[in-house]
Amino acid sequence: MPKDKNKVPHLIAFHLPKFNRSRRKASRKAGLPPGTLVHVGEKREEEVKITVIDYDETTYQEKEVESVADCYTFKDTETVSWINVSGIHNTEIVQKMGDVFKLHPLVLEDILHTGQRPKIEEYEGYLFIVLKMLFRDKEKKDIISEQVSIVLTPHAVLSFQETEGDVFNLIRERIKEAKGRIRKMKTDYLAYSLIDAVVDHYFVVLEQLGERIEFLEEDLISDPHPATLRAIHGLKNELIYLRKSVWPLREVVSNLERGESPLIRKATRVFLRDVYDHTIRVIDTVETFRDLVSGMLDIYLSSTSNKMNEVMKVLTIIATIFIPLGFVAGLYGMNFDNMPELHWRWGYFFALGFMFIAALGMLAYFKRKGWL
Amino acid sequence: MPKDKNKVPHLIAFHLPKFNRSRRKASRKAGLPPGTLVHVGEKREEEVKITVIDYDETTYQEKEVESVADCYTFKDTETVSWINVSGIHNTEIVQKMGDVFKLHPLVLEDILHTGQRPKIEEYEGYLFIVLKMLFRDKEKKDIISEQVSIVLTPHAVLSFQETEGDVFNLIRERIKEAKGRIRKMKTDYLAYSLIDAVVDHYFVVLEQLGERIEFLEEDLISDPHPATLRAIHGLKNELIYLRKSVWPLREVVSNLERGESPLIRKATRVFLRDVYDHTIRVIDTVETFRDLVSGMLDIYLSSTSNKMNEVMKVLTIIATIFIPLGFVAGLYGMNFDNMPELHWRWGYFFALGFMFIAALGMLAYFKRKGWL
Amino acid sequence: MPKDKNKVPHLIAFHLPKFNRSRRKASRKAGLPPGTLVHVGEKREEEVKITVIDYDETTYQEKEVESVADCYTFKDTETVSWINVSGIHNTEIVQKMGDVFKLHPLVLEDILHTGQRPKIEEYEGYLFIVLKMLFRDKEKKDIISEQVSIVLTPHAVLSFQETEGDVFNLIRERIKEAKGRIRKMKTDYLAYSLIDAVVDHYFVVLEQLGERIEFLEEDLISDPHPATLRAIHGLKNELIYLRKSVWPLREVVSNLERGESPLIRKATRVFLRDVYDHTIRVIDTVETFRDLVSGMLDIYLSSTSNKMNEVMKVLTIIATIFIPLGFVAGLYGMNFDNMPELHWRWGYFFALGFMFIAALGMLAYFKRKGWL
Amino acid sequence: MPKDKNKVPHLIAFHLPKFNRSRRKASRKAGLPPGTLVHVGEKREEEVKITVIDYDETTYQEKEVESVADCYTFKDTETVSWINVSGIHNTEIVQKMGDVFKLHPLVLEDILHTGQRPKIEEYEGYLFIVLKMLFRDKEKKDIISEQVSIVLTPHAVLSFQETEGDVFNLIRERIKEAKGRIRKMKTDYLAYSLIDAVVDHYFVVLEQLGERIEFLEEDLISDPHPATLRAIHGLKNELIYLRKSVWPLREVVSNLERGESPLIRKATRVFLRDVYDHTIRVIDTVETFRDLVSGMLDIYLSSTSNKMNEVMKVLTIIATIFIPLGFVAGLYGMNFDNMPELHWRWGYFFALGFMFIAALGMLAYFKRKGWL
Amino acid sequence: MPKDKNKVPHLIAFHLPKFNRSRRKASRKAGLPPGTLVHVGEKREEEVKITVIDYDETTYQEKEVESVADCYTFKDTETVSWINVSGIHNTEIVQKMGDVFKLHPLVLEDILHTGQRPKIEEYEGYLFIVLKMLFRDKEKKDIISEQVSIVLTPHAVLSFQETEGDVFNLIRERIKEAKGRIRKMKTDYLAYSLIDAVVDHYFVVLEQLGERIEFLEEDLISDPHPATLRAIHGLKNELIYLRKSVWPLREVVSNLERGESPLIRKATRVFLRDVYDHTIRVIDTVETFRDLVSGMLDIYLSSTSNKMNEVMKVLTIIATIFIPLGFVAGLYGMNFDNMPELHWRWGYFFALGFMFIAALGMLAYFKRKGWL
Repeated sequence: MPKDKNKVPHLIAFHLPKFNRSRRKASRKAGLPPGTLVHVGEKREEEVKITVIDYDETTYQEKEVESVADCYTFKDTETVSWINVSGIHNTEIVQKMGDVFKLHPLVLEDILHTGQRPKIEEYEGYLFIVLKMLFRDKEKKDIISEQVSIVLTPHAVLSFQETEGDVFNLIRERIKEAKGRIRKMKTDYLAYSLIDAVVDHYFVVLEQLGERIEFLEEDLISDPHPATLRAIHGLKNELIYLRKSVWPLREVVSNLERGESPLIRKATRVFLRDVYDHTIRVIDTVETFRDLVSGMLDIYLSSTSNKMNEVMKVLTIIATIFIPLGFVAGLYGMNFDNMPELHWRWGYFFALGFMFIAALGMLAYFKRKGWL
Repeated sequence: MPKDKNKVPHLIAFHLPKFNRSRRKASRKAGLPPGTLVHVGEKREEEVKITVIDYDETTYQEKEVESVADCYTFKDTETVSWINVSGIHNTEIVQKMGDVFKLHPLVLEDILHTGQRPKIEEYEGYLFIVLKMLFRDKEKKDIISEQVSIVLTPHAVLSFQETEGDVFNLIRERIKEAKGRIRKMKTDYLAYSLIDAVVDHYFVVLEQLGERIEFLEEDLISDPHPATLRAIHGLKNELIYLRKSVWPLREVVSNLERGESPLIRKATRVFLRDVYDHTIRVIDTVETFRDLVSGMLDIYLSSTSNKMNEVMKVLTIIATIFIPLGFVAGLYGMNFDNMPELHWRWGYFFALGFMFIAALGMLAYFKRKGWL
Repeated sequence: MPKDKNKVPHLIAFHLPKFNRSRRKASRKAGLPPGTLVHVGEKREEEVKITVIDYDETTYQEKEVESVADCYTFKDTETVSWINVSGIHNTEIVQKMGDVFKLHPLVLEDILHTGQRPKIEEYEGYLFIVLKMLFRDKEKKDIISEQVSIVLTPHAVLSFQETEGDVFNLIRERIKEAKGRIRKMKTDYLAYSLIDAVVDHYFVVLEQLGERIEFLEEDLISDPHPATLRAIHGLKNELIYLRKSVWPLREVVSNLERGESPLIRKATRVFLRDVYDHTIRVIDTVETFRDLVSGMLDIYLSSTSNKMNEVMKVLTIIATIFIPLGFVAGLYGMNFDNMPELHWRWGYFFALGFMFIAALGMLAYFKRKGWL
Repeated sequence: MPKDKNKVPHLIAFHLPKFNRSRRKASRKAGLPPGTLVHVGEKREEEVKITVIDYDETTYQEKEVESVADCYTFKDTETVSWINVSGIHNTEIVQKMGDVFKLHPLVLEDILHTGQRPKIEEYEGYLFIVLKMLFRDKEKKDIISEQVSIVLTPHAVLSFQETEGDVFNLIRERIKEAKGRIRKMKTDYLAYSLIDAVVDHYFVVLEQLGERIEFLEEDLISDPHPATLRAIHGLKNELIYLRKSVWPLREVVSNLERGESPLIRKATRVFLRDVYDHTIRVIDTVETFRDLVSGMLDIYLSSTSNKMNEVMKVLTIIATIFIPLGFVAGLYGMNFDNMPELHWRWGYFFALGFMFIAALGMLAYFKRKGWL
Repeated sequence: MPKDKNKVPHLIAFHLPKFNRSRRKASRKAGLPPGTLVHVGEKREEEVKITVIDYDETTYQEKEVESVADCYTFKDTETVSWINVSGIHNTEIVQKMGDVFKLHPLVLEDILHTGQRPKIEEYEGYLFIVLKMLFRDKEKKDIISEQVSIVLTPHAVLSFQETEGDVFNLIRERIKEAKGRIRKMKTDYLAYSLIDAVVDHYFVVLEQLGERIEFLEEDLISDPHPATLRAIHGLKNELIYLRKSVWPLREVVSNLERGESPLIRKATRVFLRDVYDHTIRVIDTVETFRDLVSGMLDIYLSSTSNKMNEVMKVLTIIATIFIPLGFVAGLYGMNFDNMPELHWRWGYFFALGFMFIAALGMLAYFKRKGWL
């Protein structure tokens, strides 16, 4: 019953909402002067939260600020200041932040417009980095992509997230507890840590995809049905979008590592090389998944045709055996006056015997053909 | 009834007229000396309209000029002059414009010949840029492509459109109302604004394509029929043409941004980088659409074969159950004199019972096979 | 009746003669010392014709020369001399021409061997250019490719054609009537004009291919049959060969434009850039055609499978309705002594009624399945 | 009976365990500070074994050391010291080794994390090389990949293996018996020898794959069945993973050969060029295998459809012959009162003869169609 | 009868022996120290033959030498010496040759190991070139590839062949009879001549492949059967191997032409450019063949499905006409007591008429559907 099988709810992650949403907004913005600040993304209700963590090797301070102006004090101090903005739907806050840190209007526009591809841009005195954070929505089983914008200045790192996520919590903790070398390093290392956290999270998503692929492979071999096809198709589409996020990422990290920017110290570059390595592995895995999934499609198609073959064989065997026998029966059902066989004593039994032998012959033929 | 389904008019945007039209003209021109001015494109009746907007930070003047000679006064003034020509079927006007601004004959030829690919060419004292503006014809649901040629000189920007469009209206307004920075900048920023308007309009077209893709995806899953296939095929062909327009665009913008031309000021380059970013996103989206559409084709094919499978199963089940039963019935329809079963009291009921049990056995077999 | 449809003569341009012909000759030549002059190409009977056009801004002279030695006088005069050789099957003439103009033996070999790919080679004092001219044979509807070799020296341009064609006639006329700038320019502009004429002719061929593609598209949608498939296949093969000719062409023109050769003056380079642009458009079109044709193949395959689906549905509907009914009829055709229904008064009519209702039920089922 | 054929145990090497295992671990590590030493790989029980071989042209010494501290004495001696660590699940030992040789924390992290891609990284004073050793598990018939990390310092080579393998035994022997030039060369030649041994082992794996491909080709031609398809699919997946290992290898060896590192002497570079050559051949072979395997898939699919064709032909022939005959028989089984033929003397025999002739006609028709 | 058709012996050139043979040997060599001389290739019995041709513009001398030591006298003379070794299974001879000409052990290893890809390597004082000579085995119809190694020194050219072939005979003759410029040139021209001979021979092989492709195309159109598929598959595999040989060849010749080696004189470079041109044409042809063959596969698949369509149509037509008629016949074969039609005078003829009209109606329906 294909009906029931179609209801394999966790398989049908088949949709392209994220993508369309941002695309639509992009077109609505068409025609506005460049640098116009309009939030393009999902409208949210939560309040925007600004957290500042200010530290150096010996001091540590964390606080949630009320207004953007409070950030001004952290701007040029020698300590490393990490200002994280969760929620970018309040364009005013982003605008003020831009005023405080003297950011180019195009930077502010890109922070607000969540349809960016990962990129890095060098401006005078700061670097602007856009990343895509990926995670899976627990309920809907979808991959969700969120934009993270990072501004790296000599004494501060600004980060803008669409929602308050927990991906950066481990970094907060590391800073607080002075784990690893983070407290001894400068803003470039902090920016590296943020990027590293984002890239590391890709592996979580890939792992879940990998499990789905394995699950589908088993399905494919044991019992392929139309829902399997749809699930493969959905997976393929997700990989198309995933790929779109990870390829530009590579360029971003490579530019950071090999770029000439004085903001990146030499000691940090070796760590960036490590992140670069990870992005390459992410890309490798995505490409491998694509190969696997497209192989699965081939297998699905040919197993469909195998099934059809089997169906046809059953039909052919039954029809080939019984249609001729039916003919013989019909023959002796004719009402001609003069049909001598009908009056033979063992005529009926001869006929039965003949039919039996013919049927056996057919079966032997099918056996030889390898259809049985 | 596939008949009715074939009449899904808004799906069958299946044609290649634009392309052929320009191609044909191109061949007719074969053999003429280079620089011969012949208009290649759709013949139009409307009058050619020349509008001049002349401005700097403080002054603003807009007027529709009667003759090309009137443009001469704007040629070398320090203010920025934007001369827009709507309609290029009047070759004489283009010729005169070329005389006034000392344009190379090949530039004039390319302005008139609407089969160009997007390109940028550097001449002494000016840059020549060809773009393709895309929009959808409201009625025919087709993507229409129109050539926009831009000549960028130190003090003037000439733009040539095939018809009077409304894409540049927002720029006119921005200049008039001194919105954004446009009034403070020079001709290079104006040229950037024109390019930006053209590229931004691509997102509108892509959004519409995206909606059609979504619509087709749903169709494909709920009820694929031959018209779906034709719609996918049409979409695929449109993407082939779209792709042809957007790939060279990338090179054009990249050349502008990274080129050495003294006509492009440093302050404008950061905006060009932004347009470059947008073209990359346009290309990304087109490629993603291509991947999606080619995936849809696979799905269509396999759902066709799924359907066939289902049809075959029904046939096989019916035939496999009833052909053997029919044989048994035929058997006892034979007219042999000596057929003892016929004379048994319960023979008929035995026969019926046997048939019933055989049918049940068959059904059980199909159940086990998973065909029911 | 597929029989008739197979006879769509103008569609079956399905062959690879040109290609093989030159390939075969190439193998026969294997082993000869380099520089051996053997004509490789179609053997022709017509006489070889040598025409000289000698001109500068003020003078003009055109004559057909009898012997190669007559060309010697034109070799180093300040005027531009265009020596055109129609027919290269007379190796002696080519040899003598080589002696007069001091051409490298490998150049002469390549002129005679018509299986070259388009290429450009710089020798001391001259440039050697090989092009492929394409045109369609009127009768056979085939694309024919002919080799054109051009030798560009400071004061003369030699051109070698396989047959006397009319592609260069327009250039002759332009020179004669001093149209355009050709009489004011040097040999490099003449060479450019020849290349331009060859490239412009590609558009004519592409236009014809485009028409065939459109024609096939319509065929494909209205009524695909095996001859359509063969025509698509033939088109695909033609595009494979076409592609082989146009890709190297791009490199040739690009080398000419960007090369360092002192033979190419700056004023001519801007025209070469224009030809380059045209070759790019030719390549674009060929690639687009390839995409279209390969899409057509997919459509053909799936419409075949759609057709099969429809055939199967008819069979299934008929068989599924009548086989069970036939069984019921067979049932009451049995000859058991004790079959009470047979003796019921309205038995026959009950049976008929039952059959009718069963048939209606089946039809309803098919309706629900969407098969009717 | 497809049932039996499915049990072709040595064909069904269809799994992706290795890959997933490391991927999963990678995600668990997400969020830890960089340089945290956690072993990512299969947990093993065997003890970690450290062997030191210390040699120059005249001296030779081999011993198994108990503690890492014992290695310190070999660190800066002029002789070449090869310290091999078999088993890396003991993170403490790796940590100590890092302390002794002053390795960067990221190097230690990469040694322990067995999900690396082949890579080479230059650090101050040493080179860090990661390779993937491939071999086939004897029992499971799977390709197993093991990480080999090599640290090349001026006076010592450290190598880290996941398990104690026998691939390096031949090198040990060569050193011991002073075969070839190894005793006369420095650490760079030793590192080269290790890489060479790893790459040479790839050929063994490829040879086994080649045998499986040949085996499957034969299967495919003589008797394709669903298990063949699964085996092809499994092979394809293995090649996807194999490819992932060998492509980066090429870059590693190329970097070593062409790199600027002072650790690589000129005399060794010619040998590295040789290894480079081998990796190219490995890649070539993998790509060739991919082409072959994807060709096999096509063949499988079309032979499935050939089989179906044959099945359909049998059905069609039988049905087409006997259904019309059955109709004729049914005709004369009708019970109309007035059926003159029934009372003809030879009616029955006429009917039989007619049927016989009809059947012969059908057979002739099929013969002409080429179906028999 | 597919049985007979499968026996199309000259089509089934379906094998990968050459390839495997060398691969296997390669693995056996794994683990040996680099530079170990082991012959990897087909074991042969014939004696190794060493021929020396020594010449300059005026002198000429050809002799077969007995021992390698005899070659020593030719090593540094000013004349050009060509030492050709036919048969490399005698490793001792190669070893001695290496001693005389001071070749690097890796060079000797590569000469003996016939699984090399075409390559060029520069050593101090000589160039080492490996080529693959292709020819078709007359009997087995297979493409055979043989390794040719060339060592180019200032005064001598060494060439090593696996067997004594006749490809170089024409060069020998040209030297002997002082045809062309070969006697006036140095060793680089001789090396060029050898390479040219090898490359020219590729055209012979390609021509034969081209003929097989044409032959198969005709087969494909007139009457495709499973053996055609296998032949296409075999052709495809041969092209995969061919491609593997020709792509690296291009790099070899390009390196020779553009390289910096002082061994290549300027006068020879123009000839190398010619060979380069030929290799490009070889590659072009191989790629074209690949495109053609993969197009043939598509055609085969769709003609299979066309055939199936036709088979299904016949079945459907017959079944659709006769099953309903059979039902009607069965209806009047029922034995109900009360069946008024049976007793009508013209009942039988009415029934026959009805059947006839029904059959005609069906035929008309099929006609309209285009199935007849």
